[in-house]
Amino acid sequence: MLLLIPGPVQTRPEVRAAMAVDIAPWDRDFAPEYIAIREKVRDLAGGVAGRHVCLPLQGAGHFITEAAVRTFVPPGTGKLLIPMNGAYAERMARLAREAGRAVVALPAPDTQGVAPEAVAAALAADPSITHVGVVYSETGSGIVNDVPAIGAVVRAAGRRMIVDAVSAFGALPFSLSEQPEVDAVVFTSNKCIEGLPGIGFAISPVERVEAARGNAQSWSFDLADVYDTAQRAGWGSFRFTPPVQALHAFGVALDIYLAEGGQPARLARYRENCRILYEGAQQLGLRPYLDWEHQGPIIALFHQPQVPGFDLQRFVEALKRRGVLISNFYNTEAPTMRIGCIGHVGPDEMRFALNALRGALEEMGVRRRDAA
Amino acid sequence: MLLLIPGPVQTRPEVRAAMAVDIAPWDRDFAPEYIAIREKVRDLAGGVAGRHVCLPLQGAGHFITEAAVRTFVPPGTGKLLIPMNGAYAERMARLAREAGRAVVALPAPDTQGVAPEAVAAALAADPSITHVGVVYSETGSGIVNDVPAIGAVVRAAGRRMIVDAVSAFGALPFSLSEQPEVDAVVFTSNKCIEGLPGIGFAISPVERVEAARGNAQSWSFDLADVYDTAQRAGWGSFRFTPPVQALHAFGVALDIYLAEGGQPARLARYRENCRILYEGAQQLGLRPYLDWEHQGPIIALFHQPQVPGFDLQRFVEALKRRGVLISNFYNTEAPTMRIGCIGHVGPDEMRFALNALRGALEEMGVRRRDAA
Repeated sequence: MLLLIPGPVQTRPEVRAAMAVDIAPWDRDFAPEYIAIREKVRDLAGGVAGRHVCLPLQGAGHFITEAAVRTFVPPGTGKLLIPMNGAYAERMARLAREAGRAVVALPAPDTQGVAPEAVAAALAADPSITHVGVVYSETGSGIVNDVPAIGAVVRAAGRRMIVDAVSAFGALPFSLSEQPEVDAVVFTSNKCIEGLPGIGFAISPVERVEAARGNAQSWSFDLADVYDTAQRAGWGSFRFTPPVQALHAFGVALDIYLAEGGQPARLARYRENCRILYEGAQQLGLRPYLDWEHQGPIIALFHQPQVPGFDLQRFVEALKRRGVLISNFYNTEAPTMRIGCIGHVGPDEMRFALNALRGALEEMGVRRRDAA
Repeated sequence: MLLLIPGPVQTRPEVRAAMAVDIAPWDRDFAPEYIAIREKVRDLAGGVAGRHVCLPLQGAGHFITEAAVRTFVPPGTGKLLIPMNGAYAERMARLAREAGRAVVALPAPDTQGVAPEAVAAALAADPSITHVGVVYSETGSGIVNDVPAIGAVVRAAGRRMIVDAVSAFGALPFSLSEQPEVDAVVFTSNKCIEGLPGIGFAISPVERVEAARGNAQSWSFDLADVYDTAQRAGWGSFRFTPPVQALHAFGVALDIYLAEGGQPARLARYRENCRILYEGAQQLGLRPYLDWEHQGPIIALFHQPQVPGFDLQRFVEALKRRGVLISNFYNTEAPTMRIGCIGHVGPDEMRFALNALRGALEEMGVRRRDAA
């Protein structure tokens, strides 16, 4: 089965195989491997030894996002502005609000990246806003927010930023050194680095982490305590039992990623995957949700065919019978279908998926068998 | 390498092998497997369909414990009494306090289970205590708290209970049906069921979960939302991306557990492991931390040898060269060493470990080579 869901992604056989081992996470034999992962991730984020630190946390992307918000947006005095142009922006707002943080929602259409000028105007209008929370790649719609450009206006306004890069990190460019306004950029093991799910990562400036002690109001989600525990242990031990097989496999995936050319190579592959899908699906009669100029490289959405009786789950099952799995739910107001362009897949897999789409559309009667 | 750490435990090859697959967690093909896991876990906890529910959560034991405290101990009006007889009781208290919950610490020695009468007296002395938090098996010291007996006094006092059964569940007896005072019993995938780490589980009465909506002050840790999301999805979908390989392998481990005779068989194997270790280590000159009558079946502690220059990490390395890995840290005030009796290990492995212990003690000069 070819996975074209927006994550967990299709992985390489050697990455999956690395899951099938018992590992003692606190054993000194595992320490060099774990240290190397944290250093490579820090470097990938444009971090510098001694100035930036990679902080791993058990769990899903929601967990590392909540942890970053709790740790860096101080309760009482902090206020978080979130451009609301997608499902994951909505989720960040809910995570922050339930954690008792003040949230300002900046309305924005979900069909394009938010305009940096709109963020600048919102910051100028409310001097009590301390942070901006931005989703780099919106898995709900497929758009990309221009994190460097938004960061520039945040920096100019003297505010701080939290970047949800869960489905972007490793594919879209990012550098903590070039974006000193960022308190944390977060991502998970199972997206663009093409590992298996189980771990989130925040990469942050050390001085910001040290200044954030006592903010979190949750021991589990206190990234400052993750940092302090790692420092105390000397070699940077994981705090609490990690999903250590997922960590080990992530290390294998990370080495492959670097050997393949890192971020530029990964972005190029995903862009090409997305282009093939975007063009091919239109030839099959599907209408993209986004204009090409706003289409990010991570996931593409298409409107569900406007035919009587079309049912997404039945369509997903018809595709599965042809060896392709796409997402069986959508987050847009309009009924859409979501097809991922990330994971261990390339042009051949995208063309295979287009053939499967053709067959499924024909089976559902959306498309005549003799159509071009 | 034979793992005798208190978890993640040594697993069976077929359980580990189940990790090496890509799985789409929201695909309907995975649904029956996931539903079956939740139902089997509910049954194992003495739960009943419709009256009790199994609520899975990404992450370590600390996460599911914090989630249970946040969900069931209401902020402001709730107050949690914790018998402080071990490192994990300390941790539950810290998790609760940082979450803003009122905690009453009941001092107790870490060399025996807490007396139910002491809990009864503390409840009588403070009518504002709403909950008692108990660690079933203390991985820090090896003792077991008598959860059924403590539950009886909690029930008699009209209060509620949260049971941290992380290192007990599946080996020590427990039944939600017989302990209606329990709001949640929690455990993780990588202890006595002998799966791999990544997931915690809470099993709770449905009516208590429904009454707990709005308590958690954390979306990620809101078990009522885990429940509501599962109900909405119809088939009980996992909320947020799960470590789905660890879930799949847990299902394999669970079926083996049931085929082997379930809780009584597992307890018998661990008890025998512990007895062999406890007696054999004494013959090697090691002094147990606990009297046998207070020694639980999960983990055994021994005082570090009182010889000049003894170093735990060096001792652990000497054991590793002999194929056995034990914990390289301890949680007691007195310097101890911790050796797990759980996981896919039996009498042969425990005797192998005793031989390794003998060799390591001789290498370190603690024991003469010609000693009996």
